[in-house]
Amino acid sequence: MCQLLGMNCNTPTDILFSFEGFRKRGGETDIHTDGFGIAFFEGKGVRIYQDDKPCASSPVADLVKSYQIKSKNVIAHIRKATYGQVSLANTHPFMREIWGEYWLFAHNGHLDCQRLFSHPLFQKREDDFYTPVGSTDSEAAFCAILNALRRKFPQKPTTDILFQEINKLTATIRKKGIFNYLLTNGEWMIAHASTLLHYLLRQAPFGEAMLLDDDVNVNFAAVTTPYDKIAVIATLPLTTNEVWQQLAKDEIVMFQEGEIIARYAPDPDHYFTVEEALALAAKVGAAAAESDIF
Amino acid sequence: MCQLLGMNCNTPTDILFSFEGFRKRGGETDIHTDGFGIAFFEGKGVRIYQDDKPCASSPVADLVKSYQIKSKNVIAHIRKATYGQVSLANTHPFMREIWGEYWLFAHNGHLDCQRLFSHPLFQKREDDFYTPVGSTDSEAAFCAILNALRRKFPQKPTTDILFQEINKLTATIRKKGIFNYLLTNGEWMIAHASTLLHYLLRQAPFGEAMLLDDDVNVNFAAVTTPYDKIAVIATLPLTTNEVWQQLAKDEIVMFQEGEIIARYAPDPDHYFTVEEALALAAKVGAAAAESDIF
Repeated sequence: MCQLLGMNCNTPTDILFSFEGFRKRGGETDIHTDGFGIAFFEGKGVRIYQDDKPCASSPVADLVKSYQIKSKNVIAHIRKATYGQVSLANTHPFMREIWGEYWLFAHNGHLDCQRLFSHPLFQKREDDFYTPVGSTDSEAAFCAILNALRRKFPQKPTTDILFQEINKLTATIRKKGIFNYLLTNGEWMIAHASTLLHYLLRQAPFGEAMLLDDDVNVNFAAVTTPYDKIAVIATLPLTTNEVWQQLAKDEIVMFQEGEIIARYAPDPDHYFTVEEALALAAKVGAAAAESDIF
Repeated sequence: MCQLLGMNCNTPTDILFSFEGFRKRGGETDIHTDGFGIAFFEGKGVRIYQDDKPCASSPVADLVKSYQIKSKNVIAHIRKATYGQVSLANTHPFMREIWGEYWLFAHNGHLDCQRLFSHPLFQKREDDFYTPVGSTDSEAAFCAILNALRRKFPQKPTTDILFQEINKLTATIRKKGIFNYLLTNGEWMIAHASTLLHYLLRQAPFGEAMLLDDDVNVNFAAVTTPYDKIAVIATLPLTTNEVWQQLAKDEIVMFQEGEIIARYAPDPDHYFTVEEALALAAKVGAAAAESDIF
């Protein structure tokens, strides 16, 4: 299973502390060794760093560390390839421009694209706006969402309407497999869980946090102002002494300025354990590996 | 005036030697201090590094140096902003996906976008596929080319037809200002000159080359095979002891596998001197600075 990391804040913030623990899962404390990607919004522009080398030992990841980029919206992804060969074109996050904005998308899970594209909403058409470049289910799903949005909305709708529509599209797509994802346009960030995804809202009073994957502490009180609000989203909690909230199965949450501005959770809600989620991923992964989707 | 650098090869090649001289023009041997960008194709994927810091002192440029990325197609750009503020969203090269391929574009010059978008071919429409994210004339022209291509060709045409069509679109756009550019889809690279652009075809027998901007020599015979073919395209020659060919005013050349596969040059041809080109850029730059295009 791949791992996701996202950050959405009300002030440009350094993701270094979270990224340091996260990147160790790419080949050091865990087995996600098939490349990684991280993308930072800076105004309307995006810095995107990807590598098909293991994250823990990648010089590109070293740059991220030394450069201390501050951003209000960051998405990172460490890949354990299930299908789609290990190559740069298959490395998350994926980026496309829609309505004059860059959107970034990273996915953890597996989707049956044959079943996805047989759905009327997602059937491939000659006038599709977006076509995958690589061979992953993830980029195919991202393009499918964007195509459906552009067909329905020639102009960008309000954030409310956008969230409702993405929620609807997501509900259709998640029936075709496992669909944990992060999506951002540089203002808001949407997180959706099929199996495993956690978030944390950091705000005043800030305290000390300790990384789970590394023997490192940070005292956030020393590096923040009382007005800072930071949402961190990760497949699994990154710190040991903060309260992480798990997203329920099929829950979708929209963050903006470090706060939750919209959410939809099924009733009753269900939370998978890590063991259950890994078992589900293995099951779907095996099924996906047997089919020749592209 | 900004500076362009491109490389198109038949085998993945290290651009380090050319980039080392080129990057010095970003704040050390020349005045292009408003950011830079470099993008490398790796298969169908793209590594893109951009910075709004001067290229000569940028840590991102240091990464490019230490990482020794080998690629068959590279585009780099050093920016001297004339309009469009200095920001990441305004930093070349620009990237979009078309027909399931990433295309990269970098531009040196100035265009009057008001005049460009009043042309029937480039009028803005609700069903446009591409919209600029930043505020540069360059990204606007890139999107205009892509929109015109997608409208005419729902499916990707042959390389021949594509070259003819891009040549036609370019002939219209260059009437609105100065339009030196590089465009690549990872297979071919197109270079077009309004004023200044040079190229060099390196192939066996390889010899020694000396950088113009730095006291550095390289013996290409030691780092190549007899089968290597490398086209280097740059605003101004980068080496002192190789024969660089200037593109004529309004000449367009398509490179593939390190060779020229198509070209169109006006008859009679005209070659600007550096002084003439700089005077033209200053004149158009001043006119552009006075108009409020976006």
